[in-house]
Amino acid sequence: MAAEEGYISPPPTLPSTPCSVQVGSMRTGSDVLSTSRGTVRERGRNRSWLLSSIITVNVLILGIALVSGSVFNNVKINAINLQIFLIVLVILTTAWMLYYTIYTSREDHAVLYKDSHAGPVWLRGGLVLFGICSLIMDVFKIANYIGYLHCDSAVKIVFPVVQAVFILVQTYFLWLHAKDCVQLQRNITRCGLMLTLSTNLMLWMAAVTEESLHQTVVPPEDGNSTHSYDIRAPGGYSSCNCSHSACAILEKAYYYLYPFNIEYSLFASAMAYVMWKNVGRLVDEHNHHSLHFRLKDVLVGPAVGLVMLGAGLGTFVIYEVDVEKGDPGKRDTALMIHYVMNTVAVTLMSVSTVAGCAIYRLDQRDPVSGKNPTRSLDVGLLIGASIGQFTICYFTIVAVVATGAEGHNALNLAVSLLTVIQLCLQNIFIIEGLHREPFHEDMHQASVFTNPYVLQAQAHRDIHNLPETFMETKSSPALTVHSMHVAPSAPSGSPLPQRHRLTWKRRALKEICAFLMLCNILLWIMPAFGARPQFDNTIGAEFYEFTMWAAVVNIGLPFGIFYRMHSVASLFEVFLTS
Amino acid sequence: MAAEEGYISPPPTLPSTPCSVQVGSMRTGSDVLSTSRGTVRERGRNRSWLLSSIITVNVLILGIALVSGSVFNNVKINAINLQIFLIVLVILTTAWMLYYTIYTSREDHAVLYKDSHAGPVWLRGGLVLFGICSLIMDVFKIANYIGYLHCDSAVKIVFPVVQAVFILVQTYFLWLHAKDCVQLQRNITRCGLMLTLSTNLMLWMAAVTEESLHQTVVPPEDGNSTHSYDIRAPGGYSSCNCSHSACAILEKAYYYLYPFNIEYSLFASAMAYVMWKNVGRLVDEHNHHSLHFRLKDVLVGPAVGLVMLGAGLGTFVIYEVDVEKGDPGKRDTALMIHYVMNTVAVTLMSVSTVAGCAIYRLDQRDPVSGKNPTRSLDVGLLIGASIGQFTICYFTIVAVVATGAEGHNALNLAVSLLTVIQLCLQNIFIIEGLHREPFHEDMHQASVFTNPYVLQAQAHRDIHNLPETFMETKSSPALTVHSMHVAPSAPSGSPLPQRHRLTWKRRALKEICAFLMLCNILLWIMPAFGARPQFDNTIGAEFYEFTMWAAVVNIGLPFGIFYRMHSVASLFEVFLTS
Repeated sequence: MAAEEGYISPPPTLPSTPCSVQVGSMRTGSDVLSTSRGTVRERGRNRSWLLSSIITVNVLILGIALVSGSVFNNVKINAINLQIFLIVLVILTTAWMLYYTIYTSREDHAVLYKDSHAGPVWLRGGLVLFGICSLIMDVFKIANYIGYLHCDSAVKIVFPVVQAVFILVQTYFLWLHAKDCVQLQRNITRCGLMLTLSTNLMLWMAAVTEESLHQTVVPPEDGNSTHSYDIRAPGGYSSCNCSHSACAILEKAYYYLYPFNIEYSLFASAMAYVMWKNVGRLVDEHNHHSLHFRLKDVLVGPAVGLVMLGAGLGTFVIYEVDVEKGDPGKRDTALMIHYVMNTVAVTLMSVSTVAGCAIYRLDQRDPVSGKNPTRSLDVGLLIGASIGQFTICYFTIVAVVATGAEGHNALNLAVSLLTVIQLCLQNIFIIEGLHREPFHEDMHQASVFTNPYVLQAQAHRDIHNLPETFMETKSSPALTVHSMHVAPSAPSGSPLPQRHRLTWKRRALKEICAFLMLCNILLWIMPAFGARPQFDNTIGAEFYEFTMWAAVVNIGLPFGIFYRMHSVASLFEVFLTS
Repeated sequence: MAAEEGYISPPPTLPSTPCSVQVGSMRTGSDVLSTSRGTVRERGRNRSWLLSSIITVNVLILGIALVSGSVFNNVKINAINLQIFLIVLVILTTAWMLYYTIYTSREDHAVLYKDSHAGPVWLRGGLVLFGICSLIMDVFKIANYIGYLHCDSAVKIVFPVVQAVFILVQTYFLWLHAKDCVQLQRNITRCGLMLTLSTNLMLWMAAVTEESLHQTVVPPEDGNSTHSYDIRAPGGYSSCNCSHSACAILEKAYYYLYPFNIEYSLFASAMAYVMWKNVGRLVDEHNHHSLHFRLKDVLVGPAVGLVMLGAGLGTFVIYEVDVEKGDPGKRDTALMIHYVMNTVAVTLMSVSTVAGCAIYRLDQRDPVSGKNPTRSLDVGLLIGASIGQFTICYFTIVAVVATGAEGHNALNLAVSLLTVIQLCLQNIFIIEGLHREPFHEDMHQASVFTNPYVLQAQAHRDIHNLPETFMETKSSPALTVHSMHVAPSAPSGSPLPQRHRLTWKRRALKEICAFLMLCNILLWIMPAFGARPQFDNTIGAEFYEFTMWAAVVNIGLPFGIFYRMHSVASLFEVFLTS
């Protein structure tokens, strides 16, 4: 549906082209010659794009119907039918990934271009981490279901086995190939990647549903949901006893690992989607700026951030210990501490983000022009992932306002409102930051740009004076007049005070980014490692029905976790370019 | 999230530029002069784009939370709270639309460019039609609620009054301004349009929820949902009696008009979204091909289509009459006839679509190159709208397969499966058709294009021979070498047999398009005017819970209706370009 900018038809003799093809310039040059081949390719692209979309739509909607059927009508469709569907999908996807890996390893010129932006290390690292947790979950599941083998379907064991193989193959595949811009067999690759995406989304959907049903079976405090247990029983094994003693522990253990599996599916989906967008793309590998990470520039931001992180982790431990005890009084105190901590963190983050946006207003850096598919994808993922957190916050706000904000719920309301504000501000800050040229290229353009004649004259002078520094600078897509690239260290006649002001701004931006990064890590750790104030505070479950609330939290929270990780990575990028 | 291709920053002296600015050529020419202004504008665009997205996300998610709260917890949040939220939204949107209309009518150069593709006549006509039905619904509602005024909230009357004003203003606004490419006050306009979109989506959501609840209150045949009535009662007026006698009739009447109101909101949302995408866009108004609609070329397609349409309308009337009687035996017969009719229609459509795709394979027309935002928007809306129909089909398939296909459910299964196939094929056919150059420009390019020198020589000759026909042809964005524009009627040395073959293909494509158009009209009329086999056949409501099934059908069906209308318009375009 989204248009694919920056994608052009490759040159006729593909393996012999140099890596640094300029994306924009090719079309105008040999247009007449390449059109007849280009149109064939373009038609192929449209066709495979359409075909892969149709496959995804069909697989996903059939999957939704099956999941709905198994939730609402457990007599006719049960977990077994759904698992058979999933097994088929998983086997098909695994086969395709193996085929792709073998094919590309045999062909010399299968992958000529790599997108340096795709599959960053935090994404791949997270994938491996969550993949390991998912594997452990599968092992627990297999061990658990072996105990029920004498009276339950064998499909229940086959599914985790197949899933474990799938996770191994997929993690290996995405680790190696996440950056690929595929040029050969593009039609098959597009469909294969969309199949991978659909499979991961289906696994995600099945896991979220199972997690929600599980929570409905054992509701916190009140036992009003036994009726849900009845619905579930015929497909489960309520009349079937486990043959070994570890069952109860295993079952408890693997439900703790569910959130990691959910997160794994989200990560894999995001990476498969980026790969799909990159099929057929020609990337200029030499385009990225070599920016170095130096921590010595900043001090206040990391210091305050580390204090916040330490305090946050302390309260997190207290919270977990107190809530685990199950004493209502202790639980309320723990919630109170948790909310206070969050209020402080979110308020400080909002204030510093506002300061950062104000600095943006002051500085005169140009926005990056030229289309960058990876950047717009990044922005899309950022805004998309934040919707999960928004949803939980607004649902909480409505529930608290309608019920009346008393006791710790006043704090709950404050945290939710402030989080909404913080999310809006942080999105603006990150997106504005990603859309700017790196700082050091800026000094000249602000003062010189309005008069092209002065600029040209000066540029001529600069070229004659400083030929060696000119040659070193990288060409920027925003600037077509090459004479404007003057190295940042070149003596240029701009007065010294202005320079100092820029340095002050840069430093402030870096401080803010460092602080926000650490705070986002804190806000990531708490939900990722098991804090569920949404369930410990019963207002949501009481206000909405429990199933509804469990669905909202279980869908929204994994996106929230993804959002925090993504924010950290994006803030790191903003830190580097500031 | 989606990148905006084809959008460039306007020239500095905006009112004096000619209308036919070439979008591609400007950037390279006066780049140095316009960059400093351009970057400011680009920054402004990013900012307003972001701001308007954030507004939409916040309004929609808060709205979803309120709707969920009013459905699941009618004690604390009831229809009144939700309606107050909607009234605020509607008043804000109406105020903005009035402001925009007055502002643009006062400024001479407010709207320089119009997108000839946006807001086509079927969309605006549909908007007016559904708007009138919505107005009638509001009048009925007001008359009905007046009867309850002595014992119910006055907000219930205020809401339809405000909504009626909103519908009048919005229909006028969209009728006049749907094609605008706004250049002045772009930030405000972006936010205003996104507010319009959010308001319409919220009204759509509220209407769908109310419709579903209404159907749950009076379920067909069995009375197992009295419990839903209890949930709804405190917000309703179960203990409050109407003071005049027309209440019962009025209430029945306005629930019949609900589907039109739902459709109205969808239409307005689509148009607001297109306008939002067009803000800041410079369109070459002289770009469209002047193709004429001539029916005399085709015969078989329209004839078979009309027969289908007549037969379909006949069975539709029988169906409506028989179902209305409420006799189970009659109802089963009516369903059987309905399914047979649909099976025949969908099968014929699939077969002719396959034939059309085969003809595409044979012919050598070039795909349209160059980005066209309107076209990719069209494709997106087409695929997006088809998801509604897909969902209903797959849910039916799962239910029937799991329950066992007996009696008329075997036909139900057949119709659903065939409809899925037909939707896939039709999407492919339409999208391939929209992505091709009009037929008559094609003859030359296929044979001449590979050798640019021959082409140039021939073009020179053509220009000297046929200056008057050359001047008449329109410039096409796909062709940069202007000498390739040879008028379709020019004698060009291509052998006659090839021409005849093309004519045969063109005619077949036109026949297929005409047939598909009429069949889509049939498939549009039946659900739009009240056929609900999904509820008359109780399998869906029995298999899933009734609320779930009502939600699926009430969300999916309006999209299905929109899809059929959109298909007719797109097929008409394919008909013209073939």
